[in-house]
Amino acid sequence: MIAEILSTGDEIRSGAVIDSNSAYIAQKLEDSGIPVSRHNCTGDDIYSLVSVLTDIGKRADIAVVTGGLGPTADDRTAEAAGKAGNVQIELNNGALNSIKAFFKTRNRSMRDSDNKQAMLPKNSECIYNLAGTAPGFAMKIGNALFFFLPGVPSEMYKMFSDSVLPQIQKLQGKDKFYCITKTISSFGLTEAATGEMLSDLTGLFPDIKLGLRAIFPEIHVKLYANGKNKKKIDLDLANATRAILQKIGEKVFSTDESSMEAVIGNLLQRSKTTVAVAESCTGGLIAHRLTNISGSSDYFLFSGVTYSNKAKETVLGVSSAILKQYGAVHEKTAKEMAERARRIAKATYGIATSGIAGPAGGTKDKPVGTVCIGIATPETSKSYRYHFPFSERLKNKTIFATTALDLLRRTILNIEQKIIF
Amino acid sequence: MIAEILSTGDEIRSGAVIDSNSAYIAQKLEDSGIPVSRHNCTGDDIYSLVSVLTDIGKRADIAVVTGGLGPTADDRTAEAAGKAGNVQIELNNGALNSIKAFFKTRNRSMRDSDNKQAMLPKNSECIYNLAGTAPGFAMKIGNALFFFLPGVPSEMYKMFSDSVLPQIQKLQGKDKFYCITKTISSFGLTEAATGEMLSDLTGLFPDIKLGLRAIFPEIHVKLYANGKNKKKIDLDLANATRAILQKIGEKVFSTDESSMEAVIGNLLQRSKTTVAVAESCTGGLIAHRLTNISGSSDYFLFSGVTYSNKAKETVLGVSSAILKQYGAVHEKTAKEMAERARRIAKATYGIATSGIAGPAGGTKDKPVGTVCIGIATPETSKSYRYHFPFSERLKNKTIFATTALDLLRRTILNIEQKIIF
Repeated sequence: MIAEILSTGDEIRSGAVIDSNSAYIAQKLEDSGIPVSRHNCTGDDIYSLVSVLTDIGKRADIAVVTGGLGPTADDRTAEAAGKAGNVQIELNNGALNSIKAFFKTRNRSMRDSDNKQAMLPKNSECIYNLAGTAPGFAMKIGNALFFFLPGVPSEMYKMFSDSVLPQIQKLQGKDKFYCITKTISSFGLTEAATGEMLSDLTGLFPDIKLGLRAIFPEIHVKLYANGKNKKKIDLDLANATRAILQKIGEKVFSTDESSMEAVIGNLLQRSKTTVAVAESCTGGLIAHRLTNISGSSDYFLFSGVTYSNKAKETVLGVSSAILKQYGAVHEKTAKEMAERARRIAKATYGIATSGIAGPAGGTKDKPVGTVCIGIATPETSKSYRYHFPFSERLKNKTIFATTALDLLRRTILNIEQKIIF
Repeated sequence: MIAEILSTGDEIRSGAVIDSNSAYIAQKLEDSGIPVSRHNCTGDDIYSLVSVLTDIGKRADIAVVTGGLGPTADDRTAEAAGKAGNVQIELNNGALNSIKAFFKTRNRSMRDSDNKQAMLPKNSECIYNLAGTAPGFAMKIGNALFFFLPGVPSEMYKMFSDSVLPQIQKLQGKDKFYCITKTISSFGLTEAATGEMLSDLTGLFPDIKLGLRAIFPEIHVKLYANGKNKKKIDLDLANATRAILQKIGEKVFSTDESSMEAVIGNLLQRSKTTVAVAESCTGGLIAHRLTNISGSSDYFLFSGVTYSNKAKETVLGVSSAILKQYGAVHEKTAKEMAERARRIAKATYGIATSGIAGPAGGTKDKPVGTVCIGIATPETSKSYRYHFPFSERLKNKTIFATTALDLLRRTILNIEQKIIF
């Protein structure tokens, strides 16, 4: 069973919006053992829509289409599906009920334009939408069974998990084929260096496809394995993971897709310790990432985003003498900031950043990409200076924050940090 | 001249990574007046690659392909291009020079695996890569001129702007066709309500296509116009923009694609005023967004990310009596936090958030999605309570932060805030 994905809409075709739906659907299909062969995207133009739907109907067994089901005039997917499948469009009672039910739960009244969303190809099967107004539908075009879903991610996610995936899995029957992906997340090496260090692994594990993915500034090693024998796949993946950890283990922070901040949250929670932060150049990004984890209020106490020197003095109590002598971007200042944040919040650990995110503000001694990171523990405090070869502001904020978080992780685990960029 | 885009790689095909390259390329092509008809994506499998390249060669005049040019074994795009174009792969001296030049600038030594990247289809034209190791190349397959670029975004961006776009523009010659998109960014209405309020505009401006795009929690109204007469397009767009502002103007924060934080930065900079923040539930996101703008150190002074009540007391000086009587999530507390942040940093404005981002922590009185936002100015201070119907943590952090930023924007401009979600 081979699947294709189609996302529709001029906003995606023209690049105004990045298509994240296709990745979501692909991942879910692959996790269920349905290989995805192609993604496609076209605009709201009816001729293009019909032509792409017809092409996919010739190649795929299953297709998932997103977008173009809404109430406005440029939502023409149902019409195109009808044309590609040679059937009329008509009022679908299931769809009308889905729309009515949604408005009832939200205590909102239905508009005339909402009725349009119940006009579906004849004999298509309505897919209820409990999270929004546009119902989906399923129908056959050519050889493929198509599932049409709205483009709004939250609605699409729910309909895909609740209705589409169970139906596809039923079609798979006993002939279950497994496609399993394992991710090993690392930080501190370039993609090329990681590739070089893992170059002999392909020969050792011929049934596993190895791919590297740079999700700046991290490098994720992806292992893809598939087949009908789940036990063999699991064993192969476990062996390959072990081999990778032997090669680049000291740069690896997770082997289960956990983010850096989730790993740190887990470590702090298990050891019943806490953290406070003082941020200059990262501008709140460290706090934002730490607090993205549900339950972070157990261990994250405070971040002082002290952008101005005045705030560094008033809020953190960094001495004006240090700021005058060394400047804001210095190991001494970063160390003092970390100590102060730790003490103010009565936290186990304190971390601090001060640097030049750019694109302006660099000097010869402290070029854009320079960051000083301080860390304070109950026993000691240290600080480090790094220089990264980037000039983009958000890129620098991101790598500064990741470096600081990784330093915290390594401090908790007592492992040294070496970064090569 | 019609263009298609192809992104390659198992990590995109399988959904492990979201494809942002295609949106970037589509936008640049459309801005140059080259309509993009389709995006395609397939994996690293040589058979699929050859088949998609051949398909595109039959349909398009121009194609831009990303990914699969790197040093590792799963990088097979050059090989596939050769097969689809019926030519051999051979060592390309231009490509070898590009790789050597890159390593020289970085003071790094070339690895054996890097040589593979210089093996390109015969007679293809090398596209230099100054930002990474993998060179690109251009060649004809079928009717289309293909440009092959690496998948690493920063490298691709540079090569596309410096080499590919100028070459395409030369091909266009005098027959220039304009595709212009205008974006009107709003916050405070749902997509459906916005659509309803703008429903009669399509009839008024028949040459403009209107689309709505929900970039949570904002709604962007997109106007697409194209043709050969740039003056007419510009006039149509200006008239349509005016008509939209008459309908939903009070929710619009920008008409030039500026982000909310850029708009605020501009307002603060022009009025030589400053802001300080106290964040509980937004966890640093407001500070992160404000400091994403280059030059923000001119007006952003401080954010106290006071997650614990202790930090609210120690750092901000919120009285324990208020915290005890009203709790952390309350209008009184948010107002006090905003006043304190403003005073500590000696800022013109203070804003503060306290709420329940979820998914846990909600109560009957203060369910998940509740946020209290305080704002302090030199004259007065106020606070508001909102409740949003979302349970996802990041979604709530995002809408809380946008609501607070919009409140700041409206306070500076002296416009009332009304949000309907």
